[in-house]
Amino acid sequence: MTDPEGPTAGPRRYQIPDGDDRERLTCPECGFIAYENPRIVVGVVARADDERIVLCRRAIPPRIGYWTLPAGYMELGETAEAGACREAWEEARAQLKLTGLLAVYSLARIHQVQLIYRAVLTDPHVEAGPESQSVGLFHYSELPWDELAFPTVRWALEQDHQAHMEGHGEAFANPTAEED
Amino acid sequence: MTDPEGPTAGPRRYQIPDGDDRERLTCPECGFIAYENPRIVVGVVARADDERIVLCRRAIPPRIGYWTLPAGYMELGETAEAGACREAWEEARAQLKLTGLLAVYSLARIHQVQLIYRAVLTDPHVEAGPESQSVGLFHYSELPWDELAFPTVRWALEQDHQAHMEGHGEAFANPTAEED
Repeated sequence: MTDPEGPTAGPRRYQIPDGDDRERLTCPECGFIAYENPRIVVGVVARADDERIVLCRRAIPPRIGYWTLPAGYMELGETAEAGACREAWEEARAQLKLTGLLAVYSLARIHQVQLIYRAVLTDPHVEAGPESQSVGLFHYSELPWDELAFPTVRWALEQDHQAHMEGHGEAFANPTAEED
Repeated sequence: MTDPEGPTAGPRRYQIPDGDDRERLTCPECGFIAYENPRIVVGVVARADDERIVLCRRAIPPRIGYWTLPAGYMELGETAEAGACREAWEEARAQLKLTGLLAVYSLARIHQVQLIYRAVLTDPHVEAGPESQSVGLFHYSELPWDELAFPTVRWALEQDHQAHMEGHGEAFANPTAEED
């Protein structure tokens, strides 16, 4: 995809399909339409028993060396909740119990929706996974605000703190007896 | 994509990219990786001044003729909230003001996450858009439970009713001063 003339196979031409009202990326040979939709990032603000919060120092671009919450792209075949737990394991070897949805952030410009959950660690042990240089546990007053990787990390940390201090209602999820 | 031998151009081969841990749909010619992630459906439970709820009778498959909430795939470049309002306009010509996030449903089997908002109509006029046979306004006690298009429609109607009767906390969203 670094070819300056662009791809020469596969979906590569924008046109409006029959019955649609906007351009879609289409393959001129086979007619395949590659619908492009926002991607979901699932992440978690996880607290230890002493209320310290898990952050990971990024080992991969973008923002190598900066601190982030365990988070990443949701995969096919998992629930949002399962994805948040998977990311916590992959990036921080953290085992946790989700306690509810903290926030939904729309980042329209970069085509992302972030679903950030709250959680408590069920095992105090954490360590860096392959995408992290290190993992840290921080009290709210000691968070590395000047070294956070992304604005949404700050939003989530501040809103989690607000929820922690003031209480926090939650959106509903799948009825428990009827998970897909 | 109806060719029984499958596509002969574009991303069509599953293989594990370097540094990844699962198979991705890849183009054997150009190396393009078509990451497949769950898609986001945005929808809304919208109430009129008299507390009747907006439903649309579907004019398109699947489930033609059954009742659904205004909802559809989120598009690139919009927030989830804007997408929910867009769908309400497209399907029910409804103008509304969102009042918060009702629920997040993960439908892992069909690769969907649904973000369902609550709303009030700001104009009492509604009418069918091109994807609806008709639009109806229903009191909760009169909802067409046996003619709902999808299980999630029932979940949302029941949870909206619960929220309406008992109050309902909300997840956070983008801080208002910092929308992307």
